[in-house]
Amino acid sequence: MNYPFPHNYSAAVSKLDNALAGLDDGSASRILAGAPVQFGGQKGYWSPETLLLASIGLCFLTTLESFAAKDKLEISAFVASARGTLDKTKAGLVFTKIELQVEAKTKSSDIENLKALIEKAKKYCIISNALKTEVLVSATVNPL
Amino acid sequence: MNYPFPHNYSAAVSKLDNALAGLDDGSASRILAGAPVQFGGQKGYWSPETLLLASIGLCFLTTLESFAAKDKLEISAFVASARGTLDKTKAGLVFTKIELQVEAKTKSSDIENLKALIEKAKKYCIISNALKTEVLVSATVNPL
Repeated sequence: MNYPFPHNYSAAVSKLDNALAGLDDGSASRILAGAPVQFGGQKGYWSPETLLLASIGLCFLTTLESFAAKDKLEISAFVASARGTLDKTKAGLVFTKIELQVEAKTKSSDIENLKALIEKAKKYCIISNALKTEVLVSATVNPL
Repeated sequence: MNYPFPHNYSAAVSKLDNALAGLDDGSASRILAGAPVQFGGQKGYWSPETLLLASIGLCFLTTLESFAAKDKLEISAFVASARGTLDKTKAGLVFTKIELQVEAKTKSSDIENLKALIEKAKKYCIISNALKTEVLVSATVNPL
């Protein structure tokens, strides 16, 4: 059951030793994170940039799953790769390109329906819509 | 050492059972995530919305740390709470408000310098600058 709007969300960041931080939402497992290696951080931890990309990909999946549930369509497999390019521009450091490559599987008779829902999810993904940079989604749908 | 621009970042999303997903960046620990409880998801997992807020708060910290390192200023403690309000608008579901409340500590003689770096970090946070919604930052700096 969805909560009535407006929704409130929160997350906390705590500085730890060794240039790391702990990310908490009050109930999920703590994420260890820091600056990315691209900005001199340590390998092996989440960064602001990779968390944003993960959020974009996850939002696409959960949006798609919500539409699929309404249509009683089963998504048998789904993997997505989100890639972002950060570059210097006149406006400072900007994500000049964000791409999401989706691979999904469903039963043969639902392939066209799933493709249509993927098009719909492109429009309604809250995180993509919150960004200044357009998220370019490409999708492949295969039979089981 | 920072990498030359452009930077490339990536993250992958894999659908798991029970309406969950695994988020991976190729080296950091997997994050278990799904839709938030506000959209009918299970409690105890990260969601697109909370990951975005965590990314915003983490970006603020890492940006601030980068400036502090250049100035040899030590941030003794830092916690930040990121809060977002998602509401129905004519443009669909939109983050109508995003706030970041920061509490930091440093030695007494560096308090004004840290406040100045916090103002600078507000301008240069890559994730905040990637969003359509302005991130409102309020900060309290106390002595050790």
